[in-house]
Amino acid sequence: MSFRAVCKADVVKSVIDSLSTLVDEAKFQVAPEGLEVLAVDAAHVAMIDLSLSKAAFKNFEADEMELGIDIDKLSDAVRLAGADDEVEIVLEDEGLLRLEIGNLTRRMSLVDTSGMTDPKIPDLELPAMIKMPGAELDRGIKAAEGISDHVALHATAGGFELSAEGDMDSVNLNLEKDTLLEHRASEEVRSLFSLDYFSNMVKVAKDAGTVQLRLGNDYPVRLGFEFADGEGEVTYLLAPRIESA
Amino acid sequence: MSFRAVCKADVVKSVIDSLSTLVDEAKFQVAPEGLEVLAVDAAHVAMIDLSLSKAAFKNFEADEMELGIDIDKLSDAVRLAGADDEVEIVLEDEGLLRLEIGNLTRRMSLVDTSGMTDPKIPDLELPAMIKMPGAELDRGIKAAEGISDHVALHATAGGFELSAEGDMDSVNLNLEKDTLLEHRASEEVRSLFSLDYFSNMVKVAKDAGTVQLRLGNDYPVRLGFEFADGEGEVTYLLAPRIESA
Amino acid sequence: MSFRAVCKADVVKSVIDSLSTLVDEAKFQVAPEGLEVLAVDAAHVAMIDLSLSKAAFKNFEADEMELGIDIDKLSDAVRLAGADDEVEIVLEDEGLLRLEIGNLTRRMSLVDTSGMTDPKIPDLELPAMIKMPGAELDRGIKAAEGISDHVALHATAGGFELSAEGDMDSVNLNLEKDTLLEHRASEEVRSLFSLDYFSNMVKVAKDAGTVQLRLGNDYPVRLGFEFADGEGEVTYLLAPRIESA
Repeated sequence: MSFRAVCKADVVKSVIDSLSTLVDEAKFQVAPEGLEVLAVDAAHVAMIDLSLSKAAFKNFEADEMELGIDIDKLSDAVRLAGADDEVEIVLEDEGLLRLEIGNLTRRMSLVDTSGMTDPKIPDLELPAMIKMPGAELDRGIKAAEGISDHVALHATAGGFELSAEGDMDSVNLNLEKDTLLEHRASEEVRSLFSLDYFSNMVKVAKDAGTVQLRLGNDYPVRLGFEFADGEGEVTYLLAPRIESA
Repeated sequence: MSFRAVCKADVVKSVIDSLSTLVDEAKFQVAPEGLEVLAVDAAHVAMIDLSLSKAAFKNFEADEMELGIDIDKLSDAVRLAGADDEVEIVLEDEGLLRLEIGNLTRRMSLVDTSGMTDPKIPDLELPAMIKMPGAELDRGIKAAEGISDHVALHATAGGFELSAEGDMDSVNLNLEKDTLLEHRASEEVRSLFSLDYFSNMVKVAKDAGTVQLRLGNDYPVRLGFEFADGEGEVTYLLAPRIESA
Repeated sequence: MSFRAVCKADVVKSVIDSLSTLVDEAKFQVAPEGLEVLAVDAAHVAMIDLSLSKAAFKNFEADEMELGIDIDKLSDAVRLAGADDEVEIVLEDEGLLRLEIGNLTRRMSLVDTSGMTDPKIPDLELPAMIKMPGAELDRGIKAAEGISDHVALHATAGGFELSAEGDMDSVNLNLEKDTLLEHRASEEVRSLFSLDYFSNMVKVAKDAGTVQLRLGNDYPVRLGFEFADGEGEVTYLLAPRIESA
């Protein structure tokens, strides 16, 4: 079993940022074509599906295998690298990962993956699809944070709305159809989400530029974005909250 | 009763910064020509008189009325706007204020003003007047903070002095007459002030560029500055401390 | 007894930074040619020898004397000055130091030096010598901080290595001979140091550009660097830790 990958530090940092909002440790499914991580948060409210193709790397040689990685340790190891610095990641024989960043060598033990479950991505029909700049969504989320602990996402034929309601106060981010990058909504749909989770996901997504939302009626939201010049992809899935009457 | 005002976000932010050092909620006296806020801090040590003319707004249409505003909520609502972003503020029928910032709509409940007092600005003879860059005054204040919890302000025919005395240590900021922007002091005057209050006022004032001080002998200090290109004006009044023998 | 010195604020700031990692108060040995501080930390693990020649000052007139200085107070007094602002330091008759920074005057009481010991610099044979950019050493230290509370410094004929070992994880900074600015190591030497102390010293040293290390086998490390355009010099001495078997 061999694994050797070389890429820019900021690709590794994107992977770390995407995963660390949900989990502390993750099982990386490695194959000759690239890698994938499927993970669920401890409360089973949210899921991530992250994939990174071989083309995102300067060099990528890998057999099929699983690598259990402590995200904090990985973060600690690459935080000293500049965004354009190269990181070389090699599997050493004793179940150790070796990172080379310039003159620095970091060896970290792998985590046992036998206790980690393989979440299945549910097959969901989500009729509405919206694309917008992540920064716009983030602004709505930040405004909602002072008002409530949950947000409603709402797609209509006319556009997209994010709203939060307090006792007397409220926030609405209203984006009409033609101000969105893409918009598909044959029927009107609306779901409610925990602001805590959603805000963390949007914070990660906004650095990617464009984010895609897929929505249903009282259904999970699917938030997707690309990184590493399109060679990496993250899809978050977040369960809805039940709206109290 | 109608109220509708449009202005740049940084004008609202100046109002918020000026008021929030003294109060959490404030009664805005609105009239067709502009608005004014008179407020006293909870300990009745300091007072603010803030006025903002209609000309500071891109658009201003208002009947005579009082608006009770929670400063924190207002701050929360406009902190996401860039300095040059436009904020539209409208009174909705049910005693709600609506803020529009780009695509974002924020509704906030007004605060009951019936319990808020109307402070009267005392009619004080303050013989000495000094104008200087706020940054200079701020530097003296910051140096004093490590030494004492109060400062003496001192105007003479020769200039202006700020001083703080510790057990053994001391700080003096000495500005001679001709280094000041303006200086009027027929008699020598000196008063002592709580550093806590005065430092907060100076912190707000220093962003305005020029600050004006009016001083008497063991009398309150009046600290004034303009904002919104001269269309807004803040006057702080701070009671003196009794100098222990 | 007279003392009067004028220099740029950043020279004073370098002195403060160098000393404050080890001590709160220090005895400055002043002479007509310049000044020197010898100090040991409270735990007697580390020592500093700081010297600053008369040439580092714009103006320096001093008799032989000792000045006991509270480093925090000195820091507080000069933190408001820009790096290029001039600071004038004068001894006033009553055992007070007067600092003049622009229009600001700060008087601070001197500390009694009678209780302060005069540490003797041990005469050590440290066979290995290495010079490198402080930033490089700092990077190795930062990577080690997540792994262990101590680091090994290791010089061989081939170069220099810094390493830290955790239970399973490790960090190595490996610098080959020809990537170092200077390198002298007739024999192989290795010593272990508390990361806490060493990291603080390196943090101060890295701003100086080049740092010099002198090493022996289970011997103290001597870390030296220059400041104030070469007119100031700091030598830290740090005792080794015993390597557990």
